[in-house]
Amino acid sequence: MAEVRPVSEPRAATIATIAEEVGVSVTTVSKVLNGRSDVASETRARVEASLDRHRYRRRTKRPPTGVEQIDLVFHEFDSAWATEIIRGVEVVTAAAKVDMVLSQLGGTHRPSSQWLESVLLRRPLGVLLVLCNLTEPQWRQLRRRSIPFVVVDTDSATSASVPTVGSNNWNGGLLATRHLLELGHRRIALISGPEDVLCSQARAAGFHFAHDEAGVTVDPDLLWYGSFYVDAGYEHGMELLDRADRPTAIFAGSDMQAMGVLRAARQLGLDVPADLSVIGYDNLPMAAWIGPALTTINQPLRDMAGTATQMLLDLARGAELSTSRVDLVTELVVRESTAPPRERG
Amino acid sequence: MAEVRPVSEPRAATIATIAEEVGVSVTTVSKVLNGRSDVASETRARVEASLDRHRYRRRTKRPPTGVEQIDLVFHEFDSAWATEIIRGVEVVTAAAKVDMVLSQLGGTHRPSSQWLESVLLRRPLGVLLVLCNLTEPQWRQLRRRSIPFVVVDTDSATSASVPTVGSNNWNGGLLATRHLLELGHRRIALISGPEDVLCSQARAAGFHFAHDEAGVTVDPDLLWYGSFYVDAGYEHGMELLDRADRPTAIFAGSDMQAMGVLRAARQLGLDVPADLSVIGYDNLPMAAWIGPALTTINQPLRDMAGTATQMLLDLARGAELSTSRVDLVTELVVRESTAPPRERG
Repeated sequence: MAEVRPVSEPRAATIATIAEEVGVSVTTVSKVLNGRSDVASETRARVEASLDRHRYRRRTKRPPTGVEQIDLVFHEFDSAWATEIIRGVEVVTAAAKVDMVLSQLGGTHRPSSQWLESVLLRRPLGVLLVLCNLTEPQWRQLRRRSIPFVVVDTDSATSASVPTVGSNNWNGGLLATRHLLELGHRRIALISGPEDVLCSQARAAGFHFAHDEAGVTVDPDLLWYGSFYVDAGYEHGMELLDRADRPTAIFAGSDMQAMGVLRAARQLGLDVPADLSVIGYDNLPMAAWIGPALTTINQPLRDMAGTATQMLLDLARGAELSTSRVDLVTELVVRESTAPPRERG
Repeated sequence: MAEVRPVSEPRAATIATIAEEVGVSVTTVSKVLNGRSDVASETRARVEASLDRHRYRRRTKRPPTGVEQIDLVFHEFDSAWATEIIRGVEVVTAAAKVDMVLSQLGGTHRPSSQWLESVLLRRPLGVLLVLCNLTEPQWRQLRRRSIPFVVVDTDSATSASVPTVGSNNWNGGLLATRHLLELGHRRIALISGPEDVLCSQARAAGFHFAHDEAGVTVDPDLLWYGSFYVDAGYEHGMELLDRADRPTAIFAGSDMQAMGVLRAARQLGLDVPADLSVIGYDNLPMAAWIGPALTTINQPLRDMAGTATQMLLDLARGAELSTSRVDLVTELVVRESTAPPRERG
């Protein structure tokens, strides 16, 4: 946790010390600290090495009271999922009288150097990353400027030193699959999120564990990775359902994806849940409203966002976190879209 | 338009002139300008009167390049509707390298004095208000600090001097109602948005116009105002549909509301569109995915948000707007939820 402690670090060296040691001007060191791109890469590397050696931490000048901000960064905010996160953050920032600066990375999982330059200039209280991550040099830049950060729902490449808030995805995968197995399903398809995202892998592992537990063999033809969006659910749903050996149940990676599966089923004349059981993931508000109302795994998105925001504000105050990895509990919510299979496969 | 011009106003007086004229300290004048609450109301009134007399405009010190921000304020961001607006704003702010500060008013339509204090301290390039509005003294504060503002989808109380972007709600109401009348419906219910919001009134007026045009009498028992959310659609849907003289068609105030109506119909065993036609409003992405896919009025939310953001950035650069009231075009999108009535009423 020492690496993410924002305020209590001793100041090991001044910019002048670094400049002298490396044999460059104070301006050059300052440029490197500000994330500016107009420094030769060889020089930058030498300056960074010296900064690292001295464990340099810049004392941040905080903006005046009333203009405290946190940065909330999404890899994309293209769904009701993002709205839930924003609402969870907002409850905490509003109470703390902190503003929320919102940005999204257009579907990429790493912010640009331009984003980082803006953050280093503005010096927010902290940075909250949702389903995205920084490169190791970007983490280093934030640490040097004592800008704390927390990741919500991390991908698989996050270093253990980065504080993260997620939910128990493995358990979610287990609960959903157990529910379908207990209803009597034996041919269950999994459409998961993107393969490079940790939560997809954890849910898939829970899916496999539940099968092992029940002594049921998984057909590898029924395992798909895709985006979390409706169209991925629709496309994979069509591929899975428009064939003779179709599954009797589909476990989708998100409620949005499940809506796409429901659409594919309707188009093929399959009744849900009589011909096909569908289970979603997230428990977005709409899951209760669509027809049939969706059986799903409740992921406490607002609580996750609120917890992460509180951790960030604690770090900004110089507090130490008791733990750098928080996973909230997932739960099965049974509604109308799951039932026993018509015939056993 | 002169009132909203942000930069080209002559500086008629200094703070010192105002202080001398009113007989207070420079600090007091400054506090009034900063929206601080620790000034006696009688003193504040005298200072404000003097500021108005001199048409005082404070030259804003803009933050350094790279920390330019706009404020995006929602009355509430509790739906996919808000996501569309955010995405529309983000396209323009990202291209202009401007950050977006997001806040919401927890369902109220007027921001607090605390919000205003924060804005006056931070001095954003401008303020974009969505389905909410400022009080006249709040507008004055922003004008004095040369912070421009634009309102998206205004309520009925916005002064003509405030630039607004909306869509043609009257025409949307007309198109939806004409569609139902042309299909043969004669008992059409309207569940509109909140009665104090201009767009609800405009759509209701379009609804009445279409009936007059077709020589069909409106049954006042079929007219309801409610919130834009799912539960309002569900509750009013149950009231309208659980009776012998139920309407054969319902025109909802939003796609979310229409989803609530669909849920009520399912619960009462009514088939849509065979027993009941339902038409939504907005054309959110989900309207195409739910079953039955929703006939709706396309409201170009992203374009509205993008246009408003561009107007705001133009005002911040000191440009004059060619028009202070922009209404984008609404269109009928026919999908699966509307059909001729089973029996003519």
